[in-house]
Amino acid sequence: MLDKIQIVMVNTTHSGNIGAAARAMKNMGLSRLTLVDPIAAVDEEAIQRSSRAEDILHNVRIVSTLEEAIADCGLVIGTSARSRHIPWPLMNPRQAAAKAAEMIPAGNDVALVFGRESRGLTNEELHLCHAHVHIPTNPDFSSLNVAQAIQVLCYELRMAMVAEETEEEEGQWGVPWDYPLATHGELEGLFQHMEKTLIDIGFLDPNTPKQLMPRLRRLFQRSAPDKTEVNILRGMLAMIQKKTVRSGQEQTPPQTEQGE
Amino acid sequence: MLDKIQIVMVNTTHSGNIGAAARAMKNMGLSRLTLVDPIAAVDEEAIQRSSRAEDILHNVRIVSTLEEAIADCGLVIGTSARSRHIPWPLMNPRQAAAKAAEMIPAGNDVALVFGRESRGLTNEELHLCHAHVHIPTNPDFSSLNVAQAIQVLCYELRMAMVAEETEEEEGQWGVPWDYPLATHGELEGLFQHMEKTLIDIGFLDPNTPKQLMPRLRRLFQRSAPDKTEVNILRGMLAMIQKKTVRSGQEQTPPQTEQGE
Repeated sequence: MLDKIQIVMVNTTHSGNIGAAARAMKNMGLSRLTLVDPIAAVDEEAIQRSSRAEDILHNVRIVSTLEEAIADCGLVIGTSARSRHIPWPLMNPRQAAAKAAEMIPAGNDVALVFGRESRGLTNEELHLCHAHVHIPTNPDFSSLNVAQAIQVLCYELRMAMVAEETEEEEGQWGVPWDYPLATHGELEGLFQHMEKTLIDIGFLDPNTPKQLMPRLRRLFQRSAPDKTEVNILRGMLAMIQKKTVRSGQEQTPPQTEQGE
Repeated sequence: MLDKIQIVMVNTTHSGNIGAAARAMKNMGLSRLTLVDPIAAVDEEAIQRSSRAEDILHNVRIVSTLEEAIADCGLVIGTSARSRHIPWPLMNPRQAAAKAAEMIPAGNDVALVFGRESRGLTNEELHLCHAHVHIPTNPDFSSLNVAQAIQVLCYELRMAMVAEETEEEEGQWGVPWDYPLATHGELEGLFQHMEKTLIDIGFLDPNTPKQLMPRLRRLFQRSAPDKTEVNILRGMLAMIQKKTVRSGQEQTPPQTEQGE
């Protein structure tokens, strides 16, 4: 189970944290670390703090964008410290680990995304996630070091795995599902297609987009669409684009559509 | 509850670990740190790694022996990594936190004891404890940093305390939501509108509907749309209907739509 989980660190500034993260991961049986646009290097400090978990550092994947890091993942959970102005599905670490344990047997990869030491993840990055995880902290002092947050999540994942191995899984909705989940990359394709279509039909004004796309992302991401559902939705969008008359466009008699 | 708990570190060699432990504790709402015969000092490195949890360091208690540290505690749990030759009551961190949560209301102080970076606690030190706690780790790599072990235990203690104090619901997605859910009648209105629109644009053939509408119902119903989301979707459907040219219909130049 644990090899289907990717720990993603965004824009990390301290190499010691990268090393400590690798150590925490290896202790809990995880091995896949991805750095998105890291500011720190995987240097001597990182290796020293990893304390013999260097193999994880040697196999680290480094990418430029978060989208790239999570494109193949069926479930993406981002760490969130503050409440954001659109509520988003939120779990504690135990629930997040239980969710991962449900999703993995069906073949889905899972990503847990951790933000910058200074300011966590941006709203845009959080909007890419299916759900958020919040580690319960002292309301008067909430400044969890990123490697310690990774430690807590990896511990819960291991606990869930140990529990899993003695239980049968029934997936996130209580029944075995009929299709694999859409990957994050496939969902991105859907949302881009959706946004373009909504602009084309005049429903979304690109000059005043407001919160429409985040709300639609939230709606669809929390239902964890499978690949067939994404295909259906994209088929609908394609048909809408084909059949709409765009404002200001030259009128084209739709001979090809008649009789369909 | 958490102020009845003492974190005890025995013979610590790295001051950074003392600082990181203080930070982990404060994040989780604990405040009482005791050092037994520390080799490291509470120095600049410790203060720096504590990242504004210095008050915990300033209040640290320093004693010469473990017996002194735990003399007033009703429950003493020691961390144990290796199996010892006399089996001893052993718990995982979740069980340890549950035990602490049971014992504290009766007025007992609790101590959680952590050993040396190099070799943990000695057999004699472990024999002073009522029970042992083992953090489940990768059998091929078990080298949890002491501050990370403290982080995990403090997290479980906080989770036990939070569970104790709050049984209130926060809705199905883990956060208070921003709008009330759509009623079943409103969802029915949405699905009928959707079905009609999909027929109008030629995506759904009413003669061979197959499982399209049930699949769409399943997708949307499991995301439990709120009233605003239903309004957005119906607004989209209305705009699609307005902007599409229907198969077989007389061409109507869309003057009203131009410029919108």
